[in-house]
Amino acid sequence: MANHKLWGGRFEGSLEAWVEEFGASIGFDYRLAPYDLQGSLAHVQMLGETGVIAPEEAKAIQKGLEELLADYEAGLIEFDVTNEDIHMNMEALLTEKIGPVAGKLHTARSRNDQVATDMHLYLKDQLQQIGDKLLHLRQVILDLAEEQVETVMPGYTHLQHAQPISFAHHLLAYYQMFSRDSERFTFNLKHADLSPLGAAALAGTTFPIDRERTAELMGFADIYHNSLDAVSDRDFILEFLANSSILIMHLSRLCEELINWCSYEYGFVSLSDTFSTGSSIMPQKKNPDMAELIRGKSGRVYGHLISILTVMKSLPLAYNKDLQEDKEGMFDTVDTIQKSLDIMAGMLSSMTVNKERMLASTQQDFSNATELADYLAKKGLPFREAHEIVGKLVLECSKAGYYLQDIPLERYQQVSPLIEQDIYQTLQSQTAVQRRNSLGGTGFVQIRQELARAKNELKS
Amino acid sequence: MANHKLWGGRFEGSLEAWVEEFGASIGFDYRLAPYDLQGSLAHVQMLGETGVIAPEEAKAIQKGLEELLADYEAGLIEFDVTNEDIHMNMEALLTEKIGPVAGKLHTARSRNDQVATDMHLYLKDQLQQIGDKLLHLRQVILDLAEEQVETVMPGYTHLQHAQPISFAHHLLAYYQMFSRDSERFTFNLKHADLSPLGAAALAGTTFPIDRERTAELMGFADIYHNSLDAVSDRDFILEFLANSSILIMHLSRLCEELINWCSYEYGFVSLSDTFSTGSSIMPQKKNPDMAELIRGKSGRVYGHLISILTVMKSLPLAYNKDLQEDKEGMFDTVDTIQKSLDIMAGMLSSMTVNKERMLASTQQDFSNATELADYLAKKGLPFREAHEIVGKLVLECSKAGYYLQDIPLERYQQVSPLIEQDIYQTLQSQTAVQRRNSLGGTGFVQIRQELARAKNELKS
Amino acid sequence: MANHKLWGGRFEGSLEAWVEEFGASIGFDYRLAPYDLQGSLAHVQMLGETGVIAPEEAKAIQKGLEELLADYEAGLIEFDVTNEDIHMNMEALLTEKIGPVAGKLHTARSRNDQVATDMHLYLKDQLQQIGDKLLHLRQVILDLAEEQVETVMPGYTHLQHAQPISFAHHLLAYYQMFSRDSERFTFNLKHADLSPLGAAALAGTTFPIDRERTAELMGFADIYHNSLDAVSDRDFILEFLANSSILIMHLSRLCEELINWCSYEYGFVSLSDTFSTGSSIMPQKKNPDMAELIRGKSGRVYGHLISILTVMKSLPLAYNKDLQEDKEGMFDTVDTIQKSLDIMAGMLSSMTVNKERMLASTQQDFSNATELADYLAKKGLPFREAHEIVGKLVLECSKAGYYLQDIPLERYQQVSPLIEQDIYQTLQSQTAVQRRNSLGGTGFVQIRQELARAKNELKS
Amino acid sequence: MANHKLWGGRFEGSLEAWVEEFGASIGFDYRLAPYDLQGSLAHVQMLGETGVIAPEEAKAIQKGLEELLADYEAGLIEFDVTNEDIHMNMEALLTEKIGPVAGKLHTARSRNDQVATDMHLYLKDQLQQIGDKLLHLRQVILDLAEEQVETVMPGYTHLQHAQPISFAHHLLAYYQMFSRDSERFTFNLKHADLSPLGAAALAGTTFPIDRERTAELMGFADIYHNSLDAVSDRDFILEFLANSSILIMHLSRLCEELINWCSYEYGFVSLSDTFSTGSSIMPQKKNPDMAELIRGKSGRVYGHLISILTVMKSLPLAYNKDLQEDKEGMFDTVDTIQKSLDIMAGMLSSMTVNKERMLASTQQDFSNATELADYLAKKGLPFREAHEIVGKLVLECSKAGYYLQDIPLERYQQVSPLIEQDIYQTLQSQTAVQRRNSLGGTGFVQIRQELARAKNELKS
Repeated sequence: MANHKLWGGRFEGSLEAWVEEFGASIGFDYRLAPYDLQGSLAHVQMLGETGVIAPEEAKAIQKGLEELLADYEAGLIEFDVTNEDIHMNMEALLTEKIGPVAGKLHTARSRNDQVATDMHLYLKDQLQQIGDKLLHLRQVILDLAEEQVETVMPGYTHLQHAQPISFAHHLLAYYQMFSRDSERFTFNLKHADLSPLGAAALAGTTFPIDRERTAELMGFADIYHNSLDAVSDRDFILEFLANSSILIMHLSRLCEELINWCSYEYGFVSLSDTFSTGSSIMPQKKNPDMAELIRGKSGRVYGHLISILTVMKSLPLAYNKDLQEDKEGMFDTVDTIQKSLDIMAGMLSSMTVNKERMLASTQQDFSNATELADYLAKKGLPFREAHEIVGKLVLECSKAGYYLQDIPLERYQQVSPLIEQDIYQTLQSQTAVQRRNSLGGTGFVQIRQELARAKNELKS
Repeated sequence: MANHKLWGGRFEGSLEAWVEEFGASIGFDYRLAPYDLQGSLAHVQMLGETGVIAPEEAKAIQKGLEELLADYEAGLIEFDVTNEDIHMNMEALLTEKIGPVAGKLHTARSRNDQVATDMHLYLKDQLQQIGDKLLHLRQVILDLAEEQVETVMPGYTHLQHAQPISFAHHLLAYYQMFSRDSERFTFNLKHADLSPLGAAALAGTTFPIDRERTAELMGFADIYHNSLDAVSDRDFILEFLANSSILIMHLSRLCEELINWCSYEYGFVSLSDTFSTGSSIMPQKKNPDMAELIRGKSGRVYGHLISILTVMKSLPLAYNKDLQEDKEGMFDTVDTIQKSLDIMAGMLSSMTVNKERMLASTQQDFSNATELADYLAKKGLPFREAHEIVGKLVLECSKAGYYLQDIPLERYQQVSPLIEQDIYQTLQSQTAVQRRNSLGGTGFVQIRQELARAKNELKS
Repeated sequence: MANHKLWGGRFEGSLEAWVEEFGASIGFDYRLAPYDLQGSLAHVQMLGETGVIAPEEAKAIQKGLEELLADYEAGLIEFDVTNEDIHMNMEALLTEKIGPVAGKLHTARSRNDQVATDMHLYLKDQLQQIGDKLLHLRQVILDLAEEQVETVMPGYTHLQHAQPISFAHHLLAYYQMFSRDSERFTFNLKHADLSPLGAAALAGTTFPIDRERTAELMGFADIYHNSLDAVSDRDFILEFLANSSILIMHLSRLCEELINWCSYEYGFVSLSDTFSTGSSIMPQKKNPDMAELIRGKSGRVYGHLISILTVMKSLPLAYNKDLQEDKEGMFDTVDTIQKSLDIMAGMLSSMTVNKERMLASTQQDFSNATELADYLAKKGLPFREAHEIVGKLVLECSKAGYYLQDIPLERYQQVSPLIEQDIYQTLQSQTAVQRRNSLGGTGFVQIRQELARAKNELKS
Repeated sequence: MANHKLWGGRFEGSLEAWVEEFGASIGFDYRLAPYDLQGSLAHVQMLGETGVIAPEEAKAIQKGLEELLADYEAGLIEFDVTNEDIHMNMEALLTEKIGPVAGKLHTARSRNDQVATDMHLYLKDQLQQIGDKLLHLRQVILDLAEEQVETVMPGYTHLQHAQPISFAHHLLAYYQMFSRDSERFTFNLKHADLSPLGAAALAGTTFPIDRERTAELMGFADIYHNSLDAVSDRDFILEFLANSSILIMHLSRLCEELINWCSYEYGFVSLSDTFSTGSSIMPQKKNPDMAELIRGKSGRVYGHLISILTVMKSLPLAYNKDLQEDKEGMFDTVDTIQKSLDIMAGMLSSMTVNKERMLASTQQDFSNATELADYLAKKGLPFREAHEIVGKLVLECSKAGYYLQDIPLERYQQVSPLIEQDIYQTLQSQTAVQRRNSLGGTGFVQIRQELARAKNELKS
């Protein structure tokens, strides 16, 4: 196949192979192939319709492109690194198929608007897939939460037992995070769903093209209204990377908790063998590798975000070659996010919850201390005083090696005559969870309401 | 004023001063003072209305808080570092004013939901101010663009003259960027406009509070539906930092161009003295310091984004002290963004545009090469061939030291008989701009349309 | 005090106050005051010695500077924001003291080389202080390790019990990290210990100055050999931020472990009250706030690193105003690192280690599985087969609810006749630790050797 | 080839293919193949020597490994994704070659110390290659500088003409930066040149291995002294990424300048065709693509740095799967840095310098203003007054449209009788450069000295 650089006329010397390779993007932008063909198909149809090229030329090109698309889908296309990028690979292949008329496809188009178009088509597509996977994960969480409404576990602040909560309540906190993630990716679509095609190199074109027609053919909601902006804007990618960073941060938090929960010390859950691995040296090991890996992949996604932000910093208008650096980070983030969402959904839906261990760990601790303080406050003691009294009792207990529920009533009444027999019921962890019934609180009634609300949300 | 730690009962030892100072946040969170008071006012009113505390207690506390607010606005409040944070400072001041009943304000509330509430109130407020400043900057750009529609300048790709464009067109590219910024900050509001109040420490409360009432009193659009999420969510801050990073990136690009444009080599614009500084050693210098500084401040904003992303990575639920690190970066970003927007608006509206210099620089270059190629393509030559021919002519000219407009007609006709006398008109830069009239292109008609559209947008 | 801009001659307009404030650095660079005076003292002495200014002028200026230094140390200096930066503040104060001769101090010097000089003096000083604090922390770790040589605890991989280790061994891993940190900061000194003074604005000066003399007077090891580099180099700061990022990463790891270890689930250590705080709502809480805070401060330091890297990206030579953004991140990192090192040393030296709990947690687990596998391998079984056999026994045990040490000998001999009575001794965790005696391993002998080596290292 | 997981004994379920693929690293760690074999060769030799395995077993394994190495070098090895990572691929291939005795190779070794060993061997090797390439680039700069000593160009601050300088002086500033880079990579070697082998999974081993012997066989300067540290340390990679970030920052600055210099506005240099590309739409374009690409690649390297810092943040000891994320960023950085250094050396050595254009641009500007101020200062005027006077003259000139050298002597003498006829010689840019002869300044004599010093440095 002839390697005919699109821009060779002005040049006397030529790129050496190793330099050329440094500048080439075909090693990664081959992923844009179907989107590039989709864009070309729209472009040539419009060129034909507007008379910029002859109808029979348009038809010939269209046929060639369709054959290429079929070849691509059949896995028959081989990319050639000497043809720099996906666009020139495609043009070379088209020329092979239909001869020099292929050259007319590039009328009223530049690689600058072409690559921007490909990227928008690609990301729009991926955003929809990510949206679906997020929805699935949220559904998995709701299903799991539904089974765990009355599972009592310690609620933590500062990784210390704070107050007992429902495990479902804990899970629903993540549901909320992932719901906001969904909203962010939906918003992201807005700026991905714009057609840059027709901006040409930077300034538009003198040909009587119809940009709204190509946008319609490609399924874009709107067009870019400024040609310089069209070829130099990467906001939609940055939004995607920022949204992905927040999402992977949420996933890293959940992974950290899963890793804790399946440790010897917690023993709250047990991951299925499918999502665990062993050790080549320690036969007893059952490692939460997948959770660790997702947690670690936060680094990768944050890195890609900072990477493109750095690329864009202080870049003058319009297109600069630096912008070629926008792709690999985006591709890798798409892969990372999609796989991480799948793995997380799989881990959660297949893990075993050790309810007894969770409950037990709320029965030999001081996480009911707030109950006692609230009990006193409700009987009229200023909260600060109640807090002070309970603090002292906790200290007394922990020195003596027992818990608030073990203090005899007479000792309680020495401390405060407000304390009566019903305190022992109050101090039970199930009671504590059940009674924390403020809106959005961990009380079982609240959780059931919230589950219903969330299910409705997912349906619509 | 007594320094009574809110959490002292359980403790025997005590924080040493230098350790305490490390943990204290009052050195920066004092900025939350008015929002903290606003939140407390809503909370106490609700406590009174729901009967959690007695009406007269509520009234006393309310009066105290209102006095504090008045003191604050009058600049009379002094913060005390031994009182750790803004919440404990406020409680100490309230206690001073109204005595021990102040302790009741903290009923059914924790510092965890309190600080989250303060942050939401604060950021909501700042987002609105940033929105206004962005609007103003966009207006300034439109006003400037309106004056520059027919100002012809070189359009650049790879910082090389590519095709002549209108200066207004260049400015409108930035208008588009800042419009997307506006949309992002508007979306950001959604997740800032949620009330965490009533989530208490992490699990809700057993007191019969009314979270919707406090949300209403504070003017929030909705509440957090999960108490763990309410105290541990920092998405709204991360969105803000991501949006600010994209915005400052846009500003850095415009600054880079301003710095170029006011250089000796370009001479396209001259900044007003107000936005320039001199040198202590070189008397001739007129430095675009403000533009450089904004460009440099991209580092600061990116840094804050990565900072909070790092803090949040793999943090288990619910509140952890690490979250205290969320504030300084946010405050500094708010200041940076607001001032940068003001400075940019000022620079643009006061700078002098050197139209002659801009035009001249399109008349002694090869940025009309595309015109010639398009001219040939429209006469039927495949674009690739036209491109090849023009490339060779450019090389010929640049060796000989003249431009395309200087080639005599006979030489043109040797190269291609398709070229006729009208080529000289075609090669003029104004013609080139005017004729690039595709939708969103640099043609004057397009720009005027786009200006009208943008003005309408700003009105609504 | 007159506010006389150093660079006013060429200007007709003037900076408005709010713009001026945006550009001013005195709000943070006041910290450079003593270093600025030190630099000026060296400069003026050299100016006098070389005859660039008259001896009596030099003397007058010197006297004024010394008075200013005394004023500074006595806390008598007030900085004025209208005087932009530390250099102009100092010049204004000097002029006040000694009249117009103060103007001669700026001969053969620019603010560009002046600020670079200040920064080098400052960082050199701080690097030495950080070096001392790191040394102290390493000493604290060695002291603690010395007490814990025979304390057996679970060694973790994937946060799962892997093999029992000595607590001292765990601590010594951190000793190694902090030793590398020390080496990095020492290397950092090399590039901080260079004098930029005399580079003037960017190109050197026509005055017959003596740069080696000023370097000597300020105690610098060498000078910058290129004036453009001297005013635009920030490598020494970037090295510092990178080194600090690695250090705070190490600290964050240790903090994460401390937070785990003092949790309900682990109970391995108990932090002293001095380094813990309580909760305003939960009276039982004893939170490892300081450890959480240091962990969170990793975000801040990473952020500053990325911030200055961003500032420097693609900045043309020589000085640009963007470089003013180099200071706040450096100052804040210096503070953060120094305080974090102190707090960490304090936490470690005051915490209580619960040796029984640590040991107990190695006696009811499968962390001795490798012992069994190694036992079989040493008797000639290929390690892979031994691993396989032990894996099956672990599964058998964990289903039945007991541990390897609980399997009766006859069952062992069914599985493999290689297993004999001595297996029970082998399976004890102390034995396992003791026998892992390869160089750098956890065996007690190894640890004692390593402790001796480390103590020697610290002495020298 | 049988896919026999090394750790399967304990497991009942099994990894599904898509989950396995997520955890697999063979897709990128295949690059470690030769280093993995090198490490295994050393390990088995030591196992034989110490009698841990029988001599004939050692010999058999050694032979198999040598065959594998030969196969690898001949490009005959195919990696299998079902074998998770490079280590298991190698073991499977070895088993194929020599049967079950291959299993003995893993005695007293874990994948944790094995992968750490591979990484150290790999990076040590690459650091040496990078060192060589840096040396080459520095040599190229010296060669170019040598030709350009008397080439006068504008020196810039704030991208404004500040003072004329020698082009060689400008180039030597970059020489200094790259020299510091060399020093940093040399220091980096220290922490890469340590053998982790023998640390086993985390705690050392009970086998009588000889870690110093394997270190010697692999050519390491020292060993890790703590086994936990050995398997969990990634400092050497972080140092590499930090050093690479500073290096690519330097490259990005030089690229920015090259891009400026070969623009229409500057016209200072012309890149060779080998390092330029054209446009598919604009026939006249000659784009500095390679310089733009290197500038853009700063984002990638910064991103990898932040990525690994994020991965390591708050990771408990010892090995965690998150650490697998350390590789791709390191590999990509190695590639990026090596290629960027080569391209930069090529660009610089093949570019054409337009000396006349450079000089001319110092003859129609005010960059000689400092000369006039210094002239007055040397005649006794306080520098501040001199500065003031010159500032006013500049303003006067620029309003009238001429330069300082065009002011008639009588006007000068009106302004100050100190100004005499010799001022015109002083104001010439060559004079200005020549006379700025302070140590490290731009004076020709200084540059020649500095060149000689640098050449000596490179020789040693």
